[in-house]
Amino acid sequence: MSTPLRLGIAGLGTVGIGVVKIIQTHADLISARCGREVRITAVCARDRTRNRDADLSHYAWEDCAPDLARRDDVDLFLELIGGEEGIAREAIEVALAHGKDVVTANKALLAVHGQQLAESAEAAGRVIRFEAAVAGGIPVIKTLTESLAGNSIKRVMGVMNGTCNYILTRMQSAGLPYDTVFEEARRLGYLEADPTLDVGGIDAGHKLALLAAIAFGTQPAFDAVEIEGIERVSIDDIHRAADMGYRIKLLGVAQSTGRGLEQRMSPCLVPADSPLGQLEGGTNMVVIEGDAVGQIVLRGAGAGEGPTASAVMSDVIEIARGVRLPTFGQPASALARPTPARTAVPAAYYLRLELVDKPGALAKVATVLGDAGISIDRMRQYGHSDGAAPVLIVTHKTTPDAIDHAIAALPGTGVIHGEPVELRIEEV
Amino acid sequence: MSTPLRLGIAGLGTVGIGVVKIIQTHADLISARCGREVRITAVCARDRTRNRDADLSHYAWEDCAPDLARRDDVDLFLELIGGEEGIAREAIEVALAHGKDVVTANKALLAVHGQQLAESAEAAGRVIRFEAAVAGGIPVIKTLTESLAGNSIKRVMGVMNGTCNYILTRMQSAGLPYDTVFEEARRLGYLEADPTLDVGGIDAGHKLALLAAIAFGTQPAFDAVEIEGIERVSIDDIHRAADMGYRIKLLGVAQSTGRGLEQRMSPCLVPADSPLGQLEGGTNMVVIEGDAVGQIVLRGAGAGEGPTASAVMSDVIEIARGVRLPTFGQPASALARPTPARTAVPAAYYLRLELVDKPGALAKVATVLGDAGISIDRMRQYGHSDGAAPVLIVTHKTTPDAIDHAIAALPGTGVIHGEPVELRIEEV
Repeated sequence: MSTPLRLGIAGLGTVGIGVVKIIQTHADLISARCGREVRITAVCARDRTRNRDADLSHYAWEDCAPDLARRDDVDLFLELIGGEEGIAREAIEVALAHGKDVVTANKALLAVHGQQLAESAEAAGRVIRFEAAVAGGIPVIKTLTESLAGNSIKRVMGVMNGTCNYILTRMQSAGLPYDTVFEEARRLGYLEADPTLDVGGIDAGHKLALLAAIAFGTQPAFDAVEIEGIERVSIDDIHRAADMGYRIKLLGVAQSTGRGLEQRMSPCLVPADSPLGQLEGGTNMVVIEGDAVGQIVLRGAGAGEGPTASAVMSDVIEIARGVRLPTFGQPASALARPTPARTAVPAAYYLRLELVDKPGALAKVATVLGDAGISIDRMRQYGHSDGAAPVLIVTHKTTPDAIDHAIAALPGTGVIHGEPVELRIEEV
Repeated sequence: MSTPLRLGIAGLGTVGIGVVKIIQTHADLISARCGREVRITAVCARDRTRNRDADLSHYAWEDCAPDLARRDDVDLFLELIGGEEGIAREAIEVALAHGKDVVTANKALLAVHGQQLAESAEAAGRVIRFEAAVAGGIPVIKTLTESLAGNSIKRVMGVMNGTCNYILTRMQSAGLPYDTVFEEARRLGYLEADPTLDVGGIDAGHKLALLAAIAFGTQPAFDAVEIEGIERVSIDDIHRAADMGYRIKLLGVAQSTGRGLEQRMSPCLVPADSPLGQLEGGTNMVVIEGDAVGQIVLRGAGAGEGPTASAVMSDVIEIARGVRLPTFGQPASALARPTPARTAVPAAYYLRLELVDKPGALAKVATVLGDAGISIDRMRQYGHSDGAAPVLIVTHKTTPDAIDHAIAALPGTGVIHGEPVELRIEEV
């Protein structure tokens, strides 16, 4: 183990440069902790002339990531380019075929093609690690794969897109509507070039698919994640939910229902005084529940140069120390595609209706809910304005099917203005 | 790696039986995750006849832990006996000498003799792992040793004794004095046989010494931890601190001051709305700050059968997978004894005084503080009763020396009843 571990870094954006800086700043610390030197031999990015915030003059340069991946003087290939298809995927395949281990931060690629890449890695006798792909600096991949490996995992939950949490908490604290805060986030540079990746829940859905694979011993299956973004979350609902003691979060939940694997990324209500409810701004949080450990909560920065590079270095140092784990915690050949749970685990729901100002209106709503088998835990009616009164209902635990049934039947009562809003209340 | 890993478990108390149950319940899951079987071959406890909540009939029995440690059919020795000296220490030495790896939950032993044991392990080419020794099911040893290995650690903080946190939060919520809640905790079985280990801060101090060793690359040195228990925390101070927006926690803090390593376990104020401030009851929390990752918060059960056994299994599975790390994250020979920081990092302080009812009394107090170089951030004087008025002062950042100086000078003003109370306010 006294030979240096030689890195080739493909992608010199925020994360790549962050990794370069850590290796340059902490060379001695890393050597002491690994028992060997960790050395960058070559780097690669699209534009060599771009001014970057690090001295790269001592490293060989490649213009093309697959060329970097096949270099003889590279033992470990760092894919920090991103993207679900294209050059990132190709370069990783080349690296594995040329006997290199791989560290990547690419959640989209792994959520969609992770199974195939894990199989390629195992066939080649190499490893793929990806701590930085989920929740930035929070050590959630290692915690699930290693620390909780003696547990049967019951549920994994998380707020894993800082931009969405920023938008939702800013809406609440400033009392601003979604569109205004969305524009603010765009101006601040918090949004991806394609903002749907953030606010549409796709980025967070990728992360959930990876956590679910490790937690439940299945193939990662992004196409099996039910996704709903935050675009339809209104400032009204944020205020009303707060009145009832809740916060609205873009929450990922993966759990085994007994009949299959439920994977959802959607706006949910959580108790305001829970750790998830108290999470403000761009911070991430992952909650893991195991049969032995109970509930573990992990909180930290989900993005940014330092935190993400810290997670990449965790993988680099793991490999430098000679640790070699299967990509998703078990041999890829042992993983089956998850059976999607047809219906989610029962939960309480939050309903918001605009009731017309007519005698007996509330009774009609209550009848529809009762007919759907839904019982009411708490109800609050606000004063009428413009001929409509907002009504909030928190139900007892019920099924999504029952809720859908009731929502479909409500307009037929003739006492509802507009569309009812329904949001799941996740028990945390 | 297809040969079974054979365990010998010494100590069949809560944790030992928890480990037996996990291995019996999750044999298939563990095999899938390790790529090999994990099998118990022999167990050991003082009293064979005691009724235990697990079927032990398939395991060989030893009456004496060192005999278990030298058995040929044991690859990995689990020391779950406890105690800083005596049989636990002896058995670990025997296990190492006989070529066994060791997993232990023994914080006292490692905090005091960890360096010597780490050296023994390295000389024998064996490993010692101890995730369960700190904060129960929370994966803090792995996070520090591995996940944050690319960081220079700035500070490690934690609430790591659930009993103390139960007592402090129960005092606040029920408005009860320390002695009453202490008795309640004793009746509920929350206290160690020697309660000083809990309320005296010793148990938590052991844990802090272990975290500090990994975080700062030093030998564990329990005798270098400044320890103050919670016995002197009054219900008055809990209420007054709450009035000023704080909570009182038994907080461990380890940080490099630039002149040495500061290790303190003592009652501190933290902001009520911070994750540490919001921590209720017996739950543990560890906060780690690294130069790259920023702040990571880990929260979970700090004790109990399931959580502690989950942490033991994390180590067992790590070893079963062939992962072999140095005890404190670096070779034992590389670790120096920490140089204790002579003075702590400057901080704001909370002071509570009982002011006599005399004109100019407050001015005299302010003069003493000013003369000590202490400036006041916030001050609140309550109404007089029994001729004394409680005065709360939150200072700007100052040194412990300045505070000590002021506290020593205050009685000389003749305007103070009793002893002033001073508590550090930790920035979190």
